[in-house]
Amino acid sequence: MVEQANTNAKWKEKAFNIIFKADTFWGKFFDAILLVAIFLSVLAVVLESVGRIRLNYGTYFLWAEWIFTGFFLIEYILRIIIVKKPWNYIKSFFGIVDLLSILPSLLAFVFAGAQSLMIIRSLRLLRIFRIFKLTQYLGEATQLSTALMASRKKITLFIATVMILVSIMGAVMYLIEPPESGFTDIPRGIYWSIVTLTTVGYGDIAPITPLGQIVASFIMIMGYGIIAVPTGIVTSEMNRSRFKVDSRSCENCGAKQHGDFAKFCHNCGEKLPPIS
Amino acid sequence: MVEQANTNAKWKEKAFNIIFKADTFWGKFFDAILLVAIFLSVLAVVLESVGRIRLNYGTYFLWAEWIFTGFFLIEYILRIIIVKKPWNYIKSFFGIVDLLSILPSLLAFVFAGAQSLMIIRSLRLLRIFRIFKLTQYLGEATQLSTALMASRKKITLFIATVMILVSIMGAVMYLIEPPESGFTDIPRGIYWSIVTLTTVGYGDIAPITPLGQIVASFIMIMGYGIIAVPTGIVTSEMNRSRFKVDSRSCENCGAKQHGDFAKFCHNCGEKLPPIS
Amino acid sequence: MVEQANTNAKWKEKAFNIIFKADTFWGKFFDAILLVAIFLSVLAVVLESVGRIRLNYGTYFLWAEWIFTGFFLIEYILRIIIVKKPWNYIKSFFGIVDLLSILPSLLAFVFAGAQSLMIIRSLRLLRIFRIFKLTQYLGEATQLSTALMASRKKITLFIATVMILVSIMGAVMYLIEPPESGFTDIPRGIYWSIVTLTTVGYGDIAPITPLGQIVASFIMIMGYGIIAVPTGIVTSEMNRSRFKVDSRSCENCGAKQHGDFAKFCHNCGEKLPPIS
Amino acid sequence: MVEQANTNAKWKEKAFNIIFKADTFWGKFFDAILLVAIFLSVLAVVLESVGRIRLNYGTYFLWAEWIFTGFFLIEYILRIIIVKKPWNYIKSFFGIVDLLSILPSLLAFVFAGAQSLMIIRSLRLLRIFRIFKLTQYLGEATQLSTALMASRKKITLFIATVMILVSIMGAVMYLIEPPESGFTDIPRGIYWSIVTLTTVGYGDIAPITPLGQIVASFIMIMGYGIIAVPTGIVTSEMNRSRFKVDSRSCENCGAKQHGDFAKFCHNCGEKLPPIS
Repeated sequence: MVEQANTNAKWKEKAFNIIFKADTFWGKFFDAILLVAIFLSVLAVVLESVGRIRLNYGTYFLWAEWIFTGFFLIEYILRIIIVKKPWNYIKSFFGIVDLLSILPSLLAFVFAGAQSLMIIRSLRLLRIFRIFKLTQYLGEATQLSTALMASRKKITLFIATVMILVSIMGAVMYLIEPPESGFTDIPRGIYWSIVTLTTVGYGDIAPITPLGQIVASFIMIMGYGIIAVPTGIVTSEMNRSRFKVDSRSCENCGAKQHGDFAKFCHNCGEKLPPIS
Repeated sequence: MVEQANTNAKWKEKAFNIIFKADTFWGKFFDAILLVAIFLSVLAVVLESVGRIRLNYGTYFLWAEWIFTGFFLIEYILRIIIVKKPWNYIKSFFGIVDLLSILPSLLAFVFAGAQSLMIIRSLRLLRIFRIFKLTQYLGEATQLSTALMASRKKITLFIATVMILVSIMGAVMYLIEPPESGFTDIPRGIYWSIVTLTTVGYGDIAPITPLGQIVASFIMIMGYGIIAVPTGIVTSEMNRSRFKVDSRSCENCGAKQHGDFAKFCHNCGEKLPPIS
Repeated sequence: MVEQANTNAKWKEKAFNIIFKADTFWGKFFDAILLVAIFLSVLAVVLESVGRIRLNYGTYFLWAEWIFTGFFLIEYILRIIIVKKPWNYIKSFFGIVDLLSILPSLLAFVFAGAQSLMIIRSLRLLRIFRIFKLTQYLGEATQLSTALMASRKKITLFIATVMILVSIMGAVMYLIEPPESGFTDIPRGIYWSIVTLTTVGYGDIAPITPLGQIVASFIMIMGYGIIAVPTGIVTSEMNRSRFKVDSRSCENCGAKQHGDFAKFCHNCGEKLPPIS
Repeated sequence: MVEQANTNAKWKEKAFNIIFKADTFWGKFFDAILLVAIFLSVLAVVLESVGRIRLNYGTYFLWAEWIFTGFFLIEYILRIIIVKKPWNYIKSFFGIVDLLSILPSLLAFVFAGAQSLMIIRSLRLLRIFRIFKLTQYLGEATQLSTALMASRKKITLFIATVMILVSIMGAVMYLIEPPESGFTDIPRGIYWSIVTLTTVGYGDIAPITPLGQIVASFIMIMGYGIIAVPTGIVTSEMNRSRFKVDSRSCENCGAKQHGDFAKFCHNCGEKLPPIS
């Protein structure tokens, strides 16, 4: 019994190294196969939506869909079995994405067209960063997301203010412009304000009266300045986050702003503590 | 009499804490109720503008409008009564917004459609920052607006230059392009220049002659560089403003704006305290 | 005779102070009158281009045009007479603009519509910075233009590279797309590339084939990165130029990075030299 | 024989100085002639694509095309003959561009319209930086490309994430919007997402249902924040790369990347030379 449990544990550990890690040959091999399968299944979903292709090769796509879903289902169950704390995996970002990648095929029985939601599988492609130079990319991602998280409050404040501005401008344009120019109600006015302020400018709704065009000009020039704000926030945070990473104080003189690479203090020449 | 005045003062103070502050339970409760009412009244204005909804539920919206206006009117009068310096409140940003939130309903008697102006109530939603983590958000807002205020002059100069450029380009395009392409007069040319320089690009007016397209190309590439200027200004100011916020005051003369690296006060030469 | 020359010189100096400077009351008064006249004459040019207005008030505009041109002609001649080195004034930026502001009215005899060029008068409005807080705005302008001048080479290199890229992409799209989508020749393809890369996107020319849309997607995402380059250049130069302005070295210890406001060195407490 | 070999070597060296370098008068002269020829041949390709011009002057363009191709072919063969390591030249960036500049004329025998690919000759114009102030521009280019190379990983990560986002949004819009609004399949949805997220906004495909417009608004506001990321990356790298360029080397160990403020080497603790 003990021996069997041992064998079981060994088998689990081996499977864990292959499926969850990417250090060994077979681990890399499995991840590569998985990524190709994910990519092909996403491609199948995308191509199936094209009317002409669906008409000619519809049954092939149906088969492919079920094969991929079956493969991902087996993989998902395997992951739950071999991981030590299954619940932690299920609750994790990739655990939820893995589950969501299987569900739409089943949903397609009930709602026609639900298989388009299988596009969510593309999120699994993010695993690719695990294979190629994992740590480096994760470092960059951490730096990026740290900068974004640090400016979370500024961005919330900024979006809230923009939403209020956009509502008022949408209502003003609805009052000024005749319905013929597309401003038939305030929600459409707000939609137009967002399209204009973000400088997308489809042109499906556009002011035609002189007064409307004057107000629109003000909004655009305002948008000019407003677009600078998130850029300023992110750039500023990025500079700061780099400094945070770089910063060790000298134990002798207290000087700061030492690069990651520095071994000695730039102010007094004292040896610096290693990076923790 | 004294007792009554006392009771009166107590009542006023209690009401002041509930209506103007958000520290106590009832203060938070009142602010939450108020924000929900503001949000619902803004939503009602937005939805009422949609033709199909107005036809079916028009009378309900009329009732909602009067109930909200009545509620806000009572609240406004209460605020004036209980605040110590009513005139200061009336002249403040929120005082003016509170008044403007009530007026459009009355204006609607005279001008049809004036109730759309009630959208201005959405500005009252800015009070939301008072309830959730007040000080932090205000700190961020202060930092943002400090950066914008500090670059006020640069931005004025920039907008003035852009307005002059845009006028000249609008007139040039009006000379080059035939009226069929939409350049029927100089104001429309200026409107097109703004739409193009801000990279909005509706496409309702677009050059069709080769010469016009060449000039437009120059304008677009110029706009490429010009859009970098406000971003540069704001980013630059933000970096600077962070320095200001981070700095230590001198214990001798109170001067601020010392860099992280500074050991002595730049104003009086006193030794600075270490960075905590 | 000497007395008369003296009177003449005095009269010239007085006129010089009024017309060229803005320190005295009459100097400010003259500049204010001039700016109003310039603004009104520009407004007249803009409004006259609107067909409906020209039909109804055409003769008034004709009169206004001649009165303004006469006024500016007299002013121009006066400036040449009273300035000490007339040729320097004529060759200066404002001298050329002043001359160009008068010419179009005369040109209008030969070429119909040439009066639209009078819009160039709007450049004279830049004098406004002379009246209100002159030095401050000039300081800002100098800082802005120093940053732009310093990044002159980088911007030239950038624009040259963009022009070559845009030519190649325009030719590729002309090969891929059928003429029905608007890509009738390479110049139109280049025009489309510029419209797309600058994110203006009129939509008058847009790819319709799948291959064309894939290539267009690559161009847009590339444009995403490319738009970051001028912003990065200007922001970077602005940070640098601010530091340049702020920089004095301590004569005792050689430390740098002292703010404009600093009186003492942050490193050793020594008194700093004044800003030269 | 030796003498002849000598003469041959001398002739080669002379030709090398003229064709590959731009220091002597004849070197500059040759480069100038070459650049004019390249520019004219590119212009010919561009103009020939215009239907009206081709009809009238088609034969002239045919002649010009063959003359230019012949000239460039001779030049290419000369370069291979006179350079010491021909294979290194052929494999270099300019070697490949030079070859690609000749091929399309020959390809045009087989595929009609292939001569449009001759636009690739415009890449040869990059040689222009060799003539005018070579080193300075190359310095700028190096700085720019260093900044871009340093942020290579961040940009890859960013584009991969954007591609996945764009796929999911494209599929969601395909589910929400009816085919009449242009979302006929997922690839078109993805194309629309890219057009919207990059703020190009042609307007050939645009949401018409209220739900679709709400989702589109979210995408646009998200795009607002996303556009800030590459700008932040490039600006941040540019600031960093400037630090690298500005720095002093340690006289003891040769380490670089010392800040302006540093007094001691961060690598060996040696005293640094003062900033010159």
